[in-house]
Amino acid sequence: MSDTVSLGIEALRERVDAIFRKAGLNAVQAGAIARVIVAAERDACKSHGVYRIEGALRTIKAGKVTADAVPELLTQQAPAIVKADAKGGFANPAFELGLPPLVERARTCGLAALVINDAVHFSALWAEVEALAEQGLAGLAMCPSYATVAPTGGNRPLLGTNPFAFGWPRQGQPPYVFDFATSVAARGEIELLRRAGKPLPEGWAIDADGRPTTDPEAALAGAMLSFGGHKGSAIGTMIELLAGIMIGDLTSAGALDLLRTTTLFPSHGELIIAFSPQAFAGGRPGNPLGRAEVLFEAILGQGARLPSQRRFLARARSEAEGIPLSRMEMEQLDRFLELGLGSV
Amino acid sequence: MSDTVSLGIEALRERVDAIFRKAGLNAVQAGAIARVIVAAERDACKSHGVYRIEGALRTIKAGKVTADAVPELLTQQAPAIVKADAKGGFANPAFELGLPPLVERARTCGLAALVINDAVHFSALWAEVEALAEQGLAGLAMCPSYATVAPTGGNRPLLGTNPFAFGWPRQGQPPYVFDFATSVAARGEIELLRRAGKPLPEGWAIDADGRPTTDPEAALAGAMLSFGGHKGSAIGTMIELLAGIMIGDLTSAGALDLLRTTTLFPSHGELIIAFSPQAFAGGRPGNPLGRAEVLFEAILGQGARLPSQRRFLARARSEAEGIPLSRMEMEQLDRFLELGLGSV
Repeated sequence: MSDTVSLGIEALRERVDAIFRKAGLNAVQAGAIARVIVAAERDACKSHGVYRIEGALRTIKAGKVTADAVPELLTQQAPAIVKADAKGGFANPAFELGLPPLVERARTCGLAALVINDAVHFSALWAEVEALAEQGLAGLAMCPSYATVAPTGGNRPLLGTNPFAFGWPRQGQPPYVFDFATSVAARGEIELLRRAGKPLPEGWAIDADGRPTTDPEAALAGAMLSFGGHKGSAIGTMIELLAGIMIGDLTSAGALDLLRTTTLFPSHGELIIAFSPQAFAGGRPGNPLGRAEVLFEAILGQGARLPSQRRFLARARSEAEGIPLSRMEMEQLDRFLELGLGSV
Repeated sequence: MSDTVSLGIEALRERVDAIFRKAGLNAVQAGAIARVIVAAERDACKSHGVYRIEGALRTIKAGKVTADAVPELLTQQAPAIVKADAKGGFANPAFELGLPPLVERARTCGLAALVINDAVHFSALWAEVEALAEQGLAGLAMCPSYATVAPTGGNRPLLGTNPFAFGWPRQGQPPYVFDFATSVAARGEIELLRRAGKPLPEGWAIDADGRPTTDPEAALAGAMLSFGGHKGSAIGTMIELLAGIMIGDLTSAGALDLLRTTTLFPSHGELIIAFSPQAFAGGRPGNPLGRAEVLFEAILGQGARLPSQRRFLARARSEAEGIPLSRMEMEQLDRFLELGLGSV
């Protein structure tokens, strides 16, 4: 008997949606986070798939997310800014609400920004830049998280793992997409090594006294480090400024102060910028989408990979054969559905 | 007798301006590049200071820059995009021309972009995000260069050193500014180690066969590597897409194909994005400039530095005491002024 079951994408989405309805979320909240969790599981992006349900349920149970929030678009002051207030709910329904006006504004203005405020956040940003790429737009997305990363030269958590994502549309195939933490590693990776009793690679973290450490426990009590030394630390700081302070929302330090734990999902905002390649390239020789393919071919032609390639392969597999889930994962889904918030 | 002379900022600017006029540049070209070269020298940013004059003169002598170019603003199609055509001249006069409408558009739209096309480029991008910060705007600037960097997992030059700069305004003091190459090192640093007969640090470069090397000669014949591994490589690729292909201008590979050498300055475009923190934060609690100071204090408070701090200290010194130049540098300036293009 196989230890893995295959579930259709739509079947898994319905099940995750039902879990969150049972846990008390309204339809708009449950629908949006079910879509994003299932998209991650479909892409074999396990760290953001059904694994995240438990954390979301804990966050709901702790009263740290508004279960019946209905996000609202705010009246525009500036023509290239769209503002979506998540009303204390998850960021994803606010993104879904803000996406159409963001696309419209980017096409009209050439570029535009979507600001999401007062959101609880846990999802990967690639889904958002992919949604823009489906509309033929390039996109950048970034947000704080909670303070777990020391700035280069410092010794205490201040920055978040602050993800940074970019997407570029491609015709007839998945977009060029990257999405990464601006810390060397994700906090979850350190947690996994701790559970496995394995040391961390060098350069991931410092202990509570600011000394380099490879001990996961010491790292979790200390601080993670930025990718790429001072350059990554600068980008992480930029994300605090643009996607925290500039949009009038919490920094990673503020989010942690408010929550006082990293076991629940943090509240903060998010910044998404959409670019119309047609508007930018207008009047210049060459089609930007066609020219980009030449660049991608040159990357692939020397044996390098495009980011997200493995994720898109997994997606194609899931679409053809269903999403593989372990028996343990299936049993957990059943338990979540049966017991609701009593399961966490 | 001292080996160093001190020259007032304005005196050096006049001298550099006169050198470029003697070399055949018109007033708008000579004025803008003299300002940016002297700003770098004033900030002890030697790699972009008077050291760059020789390269600029060689580029002029080779006929690779239009000496009498007058940049032009193009008619707007999209309200948040400003386009400045450098007309084959240096990028800096086009930036100076595009700055006021960029500031105006960013204030009106919330964010806006300046596209510079058909420019010869050699200057640091911090000057541009600082100019935005002086107007109370946050800014991002990026551009390709020429293909000298292999994408992670590849073995041949394809990406440029593609600088990425960010600025955030601060009241009563210099802005928060970073500006770095998305390669591990600048090409000039490898060149300096080659001249000194010293090996490169590990991880900077690969040889022509794609193998890691610490030999500067082998590195110059091979390819440089991106900072931060695949993450930096992805950001370098993003810059090719946004600030090369999207704006209808050359990629780093295209710039090298056209020039066939890295000893002259390349032609390409540039993308600058300006954000109005007031427009983004409007209606939200807290003043974004004040809140940013809390973040900067937290960085400094744990012994970490803000990027550009050393540069601003040098600037203050130069403003008080003049710009220190070696006797050799002074003699070179005299020779440039006397012989014009005959000096290179």
